[in-house]
Amino acid sequence: MDKKLSTEAYKGVRDFYPEDMAIQSYIFNSWQKTAELFGFERYEASILEPADLYKSKGTANEEIVTEQTYSFIDRGEREVTLRPEMTPTVARMVAGRQRTLRFPLRWYSIPNLFRYERPQRGRLREHWQLNCDIFGADDYIADVEIISLACQILIDFGATPDMFEVKINNRSDMSTYYDSIGIKDVSKQTKITRLNDRFRKISSEEYLSELENILGDRQIAEVVQSKVSTSVNPVDNEVISGLKALGITNVKIDYSLARGFDYYTDTIFEIFDISGENNRSLLGGGRYSNLTSMFTDKKISGTGFGMGDVTMKDFLFTHKLIPSSIQNTTAKVVIIPTDEKLNLEATMVAQAIRKRGISVSTDIGTKKIGKKIAEAVDRGITYSIVVGTDEINSSKFTLKNLVLSTEIKGNIHDILTYLIANQ
Amino acid sequence: MDKKLSTEAYKGVRDFYPEDMAIQSYIFNSWQKTAELFGFERYEASILEPADLYKSKGTANEEIVTEQTYSFIDRGEREVTLRPEMTPTVARMVAGRQRTLRFPLRWYSIPNLFRYERPQRGRLREHWQLNCDIFGADDYIADVEIISLACQILIDFGATPDMFEVKINNRSDMSTYYDSIGIKDVSKQTKITRLNDRFRKISSEEYLSELENILGDRQIAEVVQSKVSTSVNPVDNEVISGLKALGITNVKIDYSLARGFDYYTDTIFEIFDISGENNRSLLGGGRYSNLTSMFTDKKISGTGFGMGDVTMKDFLFTHKLIPSSIQNTTAKVVIIPTDEKLNLEATMVAQAIRKRGISVSTDIGTKKIGKKIAEAVDRGITYSIVVGTDEINSSKFTLKNLVLSTEIKGNIHDILTYLIANQ
Repeated sequence: MDKKLSTEAYKGVRDFYPEDMAIQSYIFNSWQKTAELFGFERYEASILEPADLYKSKGTANEEIVTEQTYSFIDRGEREVTLRPEMTPTVARMVAGRQRTLRFPLRWYSIPNLFRYERPQRGRLREHWQLNCDIFGADDYIADVEIISLACQILIDFGATPDMFEVKINNRSDMSTYYDSIGIKDVSKQTKITRLNDRFRKISSEEYLSELENILGDRQIAEVVQSKVSTSVNPVDNEVISGLKALGITNVKIDYSLARGFDYYTDTIFEIFDISGENNRSLLGGGRYSNLTSMFTDKKISGTGFGMGDVTMKDFLFTHKLIPSSIQNTTAKVVIIPTDEKLNLEATMVAQAIRKRGISVSTDIGTKKIGKKIAEAVDRGITYSIVVGTDEINSSKFTLKNLVLSTEIKGNIHDILTYLIANQ
Repeated sequence: MDKKLSTEAYKGVRDFYPEDMAIQSYIFNSWQKTAELFGFERYEASILEPADLYKSKGTANEEIVTEQTYSFIDRGEREVTLRPEMTPTVARMVAGRQRTLRFPLRWYSIPNLFRYERPQRGRLREHWQLNCDIFGADDYIADVEIISLACQILIDFGATPDMFEVKINNRSDMSTYYDSIGIKDVSKQTKITRLNDRFRKISSEEYLSELENILGDRQIAEVVQSKVSTSVNPVDNEVISGLKALGITNVKIDYSLARGFDYYTDTIFEIFDISGENNRSLLGGGRYSNLTSMFTDKKISGTGFGMGDVTMKDFLFTHKLIPSSIQNTTAKVVIIPTDEKLNLEATMVAQAIRKRGISVSTDIGTKKIGKKIAEAVDRGITYSIVVGTDEINSSKFTLKNLVLSTEIKGNIHDILTYLIANQ
């Protein structure tokens, strides 16, 4: 006997069997529908990108570039990376056609992304992410609209506003605040932002101690900690006011909100499941004053967010928002020959029905008819037609409704008329 | 000035701008629709696979494994490959659940695949491929059905049978033939099959000379060459008879047809564009008696094909089968504020219309109104609503039809009623 290979997928990635794919398609289709309702156009790109794209300053956070990418040298000595996020790719595409594109752009995509990290709840080595961006709109209303799109996506899955909360912060405001208490060194500010990104993951002692290390002063560290611990809802924030005008009120300012990526410059936001079941944010995003600086001197600002499929699915399951009617894409009708010799005739009946746009499977396996019908029921197929010698000779068929246990008899024309009328 | 990065994509892969994505989505949606019409269920998997999957005998052809894969060592010392084809992956998935899956399976997927080769017409380093397979059906009718599905996919794009031709061969029959003329050595037979795979790419002198090298006999080489050069339509081939019963007659036997992969055992087929514009086959496939031997001792036979997006698109363009109505997914209505101060009000109007399921974009850029309307026309947006102080104060809006140059005036309720009635 040969040694057999394992049938496991590569570590940290998923196989999508038809029942998994049905859920994945449900999520992707809903994302697509809501994004297009907001006038967003779809783009995509390859997962392979030149590694330089992630090495440039201001593109990604350090952790991702140095420790978490899948990078390798190709046979032509080029360094290639499996994209860990979509933003550098879309920045490259927008910069590449900056002269001919008509701004503001509303673009979305559903790329798969790769991160080399220990698989854990809500985080895998490969995941898919809805990315929505408005490019070339400086006004805060673009932030309002992008956040309202993010909320509408959850609502369109059947979520209600009490299930989630939008947390908002503003990097520029935080910088002004740090300045005001004497922390004027930009690199120190950046270090605080990166520490804040871990604020909810570490203890308050740890946080304070690391902050003191950055600032070299315990007293100022305590002032910053007190500020960052605040979650408020001030009336003078224009993004929050704008959202309120659109009826979106489950919004809070959270000064600890930092976002991992360095390119955000102003408003940043995340949306959290408030059930307590899912600690990671459902999505996050923000405004960048210039995303394309590594490609061009022309400034292109924008605002956008990314939303992962794994956390999305966890949220839907937690709140029982996956409709029970989701099932594999399966045929409406199955044709079951009584004997292998009639497989061709069964296929001809199938073809006649498919010509009318109705999906048909044939079960040409060698199991017994009763077993085949039981399996058709399990698969969610609505109708069966058994094809035997009698049916062929008489040109009369019986169409069984497997759900209602009813049946009609007739020639192929009668069957087609019935199926079309009962679609 | 900083040194700027190139905005080019990685060599041999494609960026899909919205207008490219529109065509890609058109192709994928049509593939999906026809596959599901035939009762096929969708599965997918990650592009990352353990490299061992492609090293096992009988899985892929030598060229692909040794020269054409993207393989690298991950940080955990695992050898990983970007899948060059989907068959080993689906074999792994089927073998992994062989006890619970209900055969025969009808499965399809649209994976992206990677090959490290020189980019050329119809061949890129990354392409997408429709894969359709019937697993667990030994009868030749499964071959007939899979070929009829392949033909129907072309027909559903608007192709007519005179635009393409199905070429069929049978590995088992070829083996019987080689036996009959004294070539009984299986490794010699495999070498001939691999040489035949290049039959149309090399000169007949080269072919004969390489064949003589394999066989060590010029006379027998000439006999084989004469057989392989034959393209016939014998009446006793059951697959061809079955296709004829389904009305598919653009089919020929071609003894040179070889297919690159070693796992095929019986019927093999390819479909060619007969315009002469595209030399590569549009799709290819065949029957395998046991695809899962590297994972399990249980034999799982099947039949299937793969069809690439690049050759598909070339075919559609050659035969002018891309409908002129294809355009970017774009909004139905654009809201244009007359002043930045009215951006929020414009967004509120947009929200009211979106609530009725109609897609709306807002143009909050800083261009002049005339320019914004001209761009909306270019984008294929049907309606515009300009929102200025007068409109806000009077609560009366003008909905312009940008295609017909007509307009209606009314409050938001009137506009909604009109839009819903004219969807």
